[in-house]
Amino acid sequence: MQISLSRRLRRTPFSAAVEAAGVKGYTVYNRMLLPTVFDSVEADYRHLKTHVQLWDVAVERQIELRGPDAGRLLQILTPRDLRGMLPGQCYYIPVVDETGGMLNDPVALKLSDERYWISIADSDLLLWVKALGLARQLEVLVDEPDVSPLAVQGPKADELMARVFGPEVMALRFFRFGFFQFEGRDLVVARSGYSRQGGFEIYVEGADLGMPLWEALTRAGEDLNVRAGCPNLIERIEGGLLSYGNDMTRANTPFECGLGRFCNVETAIGCLGRDALMRVSMDGPIRQIRALEIAGDPLPSCDRAWPLWAGNVQVGQVTSAAWSPDYAGNVAIGMVRMTHWDPGTELVVETQQGTRNALVRGGFWKSTT
Amino acid sequence: MQISLSRRLRRTPFSAAVEAAGVKGYTVYNRMLLPTVFDSVEADYRHLKTHVQLWDVAVERQIELRGPDAGRLLQILTPRDLRGMLPGQCYYIPVVDETGGMLNDPVALKLSDERYWISIADSDLLLWVKALGLARQLEVLVDEPDVSPLAVQGPKADELMARVFGPEVMALRFFRFGFFQFEGRDLVVARSGYSRQGGFEIYVEGADLGMPLWEALTRAGEDLNVRAGCPNLIERIEGGLLSYGNDMTRANTPFECGLGRFCNVETAIGCLGRDALMRVSMDGPIRQIRALEIAGDPLPSCDRAWPLWAGNVQVGQVTSAAWSPDYAGNVAIGMVRMTHWDPGTELVVETQQGTRNALVRGGFWKSTT
Repeated sequence: MQISLSRRLRRTPFSAAVEAAGVKGYTVYNRMLLPTVFDSVEADYRHLKTHVQLWDVAVERQIELRGPDAGRLLQILTPRDLRGMLPGQCYYIPVVDETGGMLNDPVALKLSDERYWISIADSDLLLWVKALGLARQLEVLVDEPDVSPLAVQGPKADELMARVFGPEVMALRFFRFGFFQFEGRDLVVARSGYSRQGGFEIYVEGADLGMPLWEALTRAGEDLNVRAGCPNLIERIEGGLLSYGNDMTRANTPFECGLGRFCNVETAIGCLGRDALMRVSMDGPIRQIRALEIAGDPLPSCDRAWPLWAGNVQVGQVTSAAWSPDYAGNVAIGMVRMTHWDPGTELVVETQQGTRNALVRGGFWKSTT
Repeated sequence: MQISLSRRLRRTPFSAAVEAAGVKGYTVYNRMLLPTVFDSVEADYRHLKTHVQLWDVAVERQIELRGPDAGRLLQILTPRDLRGMLPGQCYYIPVVDETGGMLNDPVALKLSDERYWISIADSDLLLWVKALGLARQLEVLVDEPDVSPLAVQGPKADELMARVFGPEVMALRFFRFGFFQFEGRDLVVARSGYSRQGGFEIYVEGADLGMPLWEALTRAGEDLNVRAGCPNLIERIEGGLLSYGNDMTRANTPFECGLGRFCNVETAIGCLGRDALMRVSMDGPIRQIRALEIAGDPLPSCDRAWPLWAGNVQVGQVTSAAWSPDYAGNVAIGMVRMTHWDPGTELVVETQQGTRNALVRGGFWKSTT
């Protein structure tokens, strides 16, 4: 199926490089183009696990909070207790509405006590944050700055980054960031990214730097077999990396998404959804994210929620699925009711091309970097 | 370029019909699939102007406001004075932030004094509205109901609609709606739609009704040559129908978008952006939407803003463009600075495939139904 391009589906500072690299597919994420495949999803996967890739993830738009009340506003958004957050740290934060429903699952970066970036998943969280800041009359400026993340992912990411930003970049710990120079300008570089292969995200401030940085990384990594890549469907399912809008929506609480460890409902004072989540945290969720194996040959595209059946009772749904070459089977993510979420439970999944057997697993295929 | 499908790009209650009709292209709008072409954009255009089409415009998601403060919250969103709005009326309302920047350009429907729908363009306005309602502690429920609009557009729309909903539907005036039965359920039907060919929008409440209604309309319109269609790029540019995200963004005020007639800054008490717009309304905008003719053969896809030059000074940008068979030229929409916006001004537009001459027009090609 063709995608019809228009200005509304925004290009990024890296789009010219992505096109030159022969991008074959896009999705739309935060009303911006996100590459999905270059060679084939399976070839991209193998390359990602072996070498190093440059990812145009400019779709991870930033929301900047600046001013004396920046930290206070951030705490309103999330049940994660932010009091211990230090400058230079990245925090994965569930953002919830007043009912505890997930609005986004961004990474927040603390630049200073009065300045944060929220690196968002696929929803216009800017509108939510701006409206709350305004209506609460907080002293904080909220806007989308000219910042476009470029991810460097794969086992050779450290080597490549050291060549461009200096060996100090290798000292960054996971979910920490520092400032590193490129062409005389300081860029935020974090050890993070939407894969389990290790790597970095460079927060490119200033669209004019996008192409020069891409080209510098490409030149520096020639012998490392660097090439353009993108978040890989197979690899992210194997690693249990959730996708907002696919695996969870506003209908789900963080507890259902397995994000209970990021919810400090006792102490996250000010969080808008705290009261609703307090209740859930006591009883626990009645459905939760699970890894599932689906039997048989490669599946059709999981372009809609696939019901999960136990006999003639629906007990959940599968929301992401792909054929895994490394595990020689279909890997999947779904939401399963507590009556049927124990590892080893056998269910039936209903795709748009018939039913298959599905097995609930105890964990994802690869869950650490 | 291929689009990679996933659950995050939501299907609609009509997707099965759209696929059966041979949809060839999609865009993504409100994180949902919107068809863009069936036969060819030019063939679709000719058919739309001659016969009648069914459009899956479920992407026009609804925001429901319900409760004693529903009207008060709606007025906070827009500089249009809503005091005269009656049940059964549709109002096109610019929605602005505190600086007067456009957040959306929806159509609001007044169902009753305490119940409204906002039929939105492409931004997650729900988050803005929910946050304002909450933070202002208004007595209003804000949510996205299970409502998916189906548009019936084209010169034979009245005839087709009368066959399915009864002749009373033809008495609807422009931008009025009524309740009409289908399979024993009351549906909101409005005389409205994103074309200048006339027609209706059926607000299908309940996804289960989607396919039966599509099929009923298809059966009833066989001899009218009814078929699947979609908002048509050429026709909407000829008619001067703006597209949020293409022709205007948060960077623009309603005055820049030529929507000053929907701004009652003197009397729209409560509107969040009123003070900022008061200033603009006195001075007038310094740039504004204009129709432009672009010389030469059919253009490449307008997938980015095209700068407009007067000599070596940029004086605006083109944001939508298409080849018009009926006007035998390239029709376009752009934003032009006041120094160069007079009809007849000759400019140069810079596309991704070279420059062309462009002429500022006094109006759009077809501006009334």
